[in-house]
Amino acid sequence: MRLALDAAWQYQGLTYPNPAVGCAVVQNGAVIAVGAHAKAGEPHAEVMALKEAYMVLSSDRGIEKLEKSEEIHAYLLKHHKDIFLICELYITLEPCTHRGKTPACSELIQIMRPKKVYISQYDPNTEAAGGAQALIDSGIDVEYGLCEEEGRALIEPFMKWSEKNFVFFKWAQRLDGTVDGGLISDKTSRVRMHAMRNLCDLIVIGGNTVRVDRPTLDARLVGGRAPDVLIYSNEKAFDPSIPLFSVKNRNVFVEKSFERLDDYKNIMIEGGPQMFAASEEIVDRYLCFMAPSSGGEVKFLKDKKDFDILNTQKLENDLMIWMQER
Amino acid sequence: MRLALDAAWQYQGLTYPNPAVGCAVVQNGAVIAVGAHAKAGEPHAEVMALKEAYMVLSSDRGIEKLEKSEEIHAYLLKHHKDIFLICELYITLEPCTHRGKTPACSELIQIMRPKKVYISQYDPNTEAAGGAQALIDSGIDVEYGLCEEEGRALIEPFMKWSEKNFVFFKWAQRLDGTVDGGLISDKTSRVRMHAMRNLCDLIVIGGNTVRVDRPTLDARLVGGRAPDVLIYSNEKAFDPSIPLFSVKNRNVFVEKSFERLDDYKNIMIEGGPQMFAASEEIVDRYLCFMAPSSGGEVKFLKDKKDFDILNTQKLENDLMIWMQER
Repeated sequence: MRLALDAAWQYQGLTYPNPAVGCAVVQNGAVIAVGAHAKAGEPHAEVMALKEAYMVLSSDRGIEKLEKSEEIHAYLLKHHKDIFLICELYITLEPCTHRGKTPACSELIQIMRPKKVYISQYDPNTEAAGGAQALIDSGIDVEYGLCEEEGRALIEPFMKWSEKNFVFFKWAQRLDGTVDGGLISDKTSRVRMHAMRNLCDLIVIGGNTVRVDRPTLDARLVGGRAPDVLIYSNEKAFDPSIPLFSVKNRNVFVEKSFERLDDYKNIMIEGGPQMFAASEEIVDRYLCFMAPSSGGEVKFLKDKKDFDILNTQKLENDLMIWMQER
Repeated sequence: MRLALDAAWQYQGLTYPNPAVGCAVVQNGAVIAVGAHAKAGEPHAEVMALKEAYMVLSSDRGIEKLEKSEEIHAYLLKHHKDIFLICELYITLEPCTHRGKTPACSELIQIMRPKKVYISQYDPNTEAAGGAQALIDSGIDVEYGLCEEEGRALIEPFMKWSEKNFVFFKWAQRLDGTVDGGLISDKTSRVRMHAMRNLCDLIVIGGNTVRVDRPTLDARLVGGRAPDVLIYSNEKAFDPSIPLFSVKNRNVFVEKSFERLDDYKNIMIEGGPQMFAASEEIVDRYLCFMAPSSGGEVKFLKDKKDFDILNTQKLENDLMIWMQER
């Protein structure tokens, strides 16, 4: 289950509006395959893991080039020859029951008939829920609650934006805590930030940061869509030549209020220490891109704060650290 | 190989005088077992991984309770029934050829006859080297150089102390880069630091830190041995009631020179920013315990510095980050 959780975290922030999900296939104690859901419209974690496991367990490479979920489903249904009968699946979230952009995972699993399915978290989304019961009804042994807390932390963003909205505060700093004095993050981190922006529907940013940094706040590094922008500021006047105002198909609001957030689902807050302090009450998660360097003067975190680390990944030479307030 | 490397890093700093080594056993693309060398005198990584793999591949649990390397060797030699014939081993370091505290791994592997052995790094220790050639001579397919750079970074401490000495600078800080204002690290981090001290033969510390912190510099949290201490200072006079002076079986030197380090092998430098600056020329690696919190005033890293991150692990709620200067 830990491998499944780790695999899912690789795509946290990239699966919107879907949850980040991971799945591991185990046979007689050996890990056969691990998969994760990478992006809405692409195969679910279970499909990715079963595809990989099929290649390992059969010597059939016919499935290798299939990328669409319905193609992989169809191939597995036709060729599985009951090779998963002695396998166990470890899934971070209850497999879905609804045929959305991809066929339902619970139907696929029912036909593959693994010996046992471990599920960390029930699906809180009523539309797709019921997968665990469907498996049980078809005679598959299902055990719920393995690494329950970690599974919950993984899908909390999904739960938040399903109910109302998910708000995360993103910043980049050096190991010495500083943010001034030029570029901080390496290319891979900046590409990841743009990939996440591409899936956000609103960026919130402080007025000072807009004036000083003159940002574009788009997702050009991934050829993505620019989210709407809320400039959190009393002062309505901004130099209209600041690039963020010239991005097409974007709404920009200048308001000293967070009420606007009620109209959005997946919201990234960027900005400096002032914005950090102003938004504490509405932030669900913190995401820090930390470069292993030092040399600035201005610290980002000014006041006392305690976080819990939920996940850490190394990207190129930076660390990407997901946290929540303790 | 990445799983083997990760497993080995868990014990970096705890295997002295042996290198940190990891091993994964794979069969038809499935990961059967991963093992690492935890401590000198305990089984090598290959033995840990083969023991685990044997339990997975056979249904024989007789090996489970065996902890001594010679017992596991003997059990495997007697019971293996050629179950490893279609397995592949991924080992971060060439298997040893010498019978030291434990029997030679290369002999065990020759008899288990895996289909292929991948080795990241040749053993630079002439006494134990030659394992790869011994495997080749016995007809096993050996491939060298997988993840060579990562394998090299993993054993560099071992190479350094085998040649002359290994010097690492350890500090603890918060996410905001600060070090003042009370306890920083959580219990698990402090226990880990003591476990590492227990295996160091010398701690180097600045005179100011000794006067201000009045440390003991022992390994009491793990019931371990206290290393010798070099106080790097011009000023010879210290309050003799500072606890580090009362630790039994310890030499304490007060010298404004690093020449003393030539007499030691595994050396930890602790201290503040001054010690950090003074020791830059002689440090091989940096180890930062980072607590996800903020609230201090005094930054640890004062000047411009760029590191490469070699490995990151989460301990309880802190991050342990191994780095080298870029």
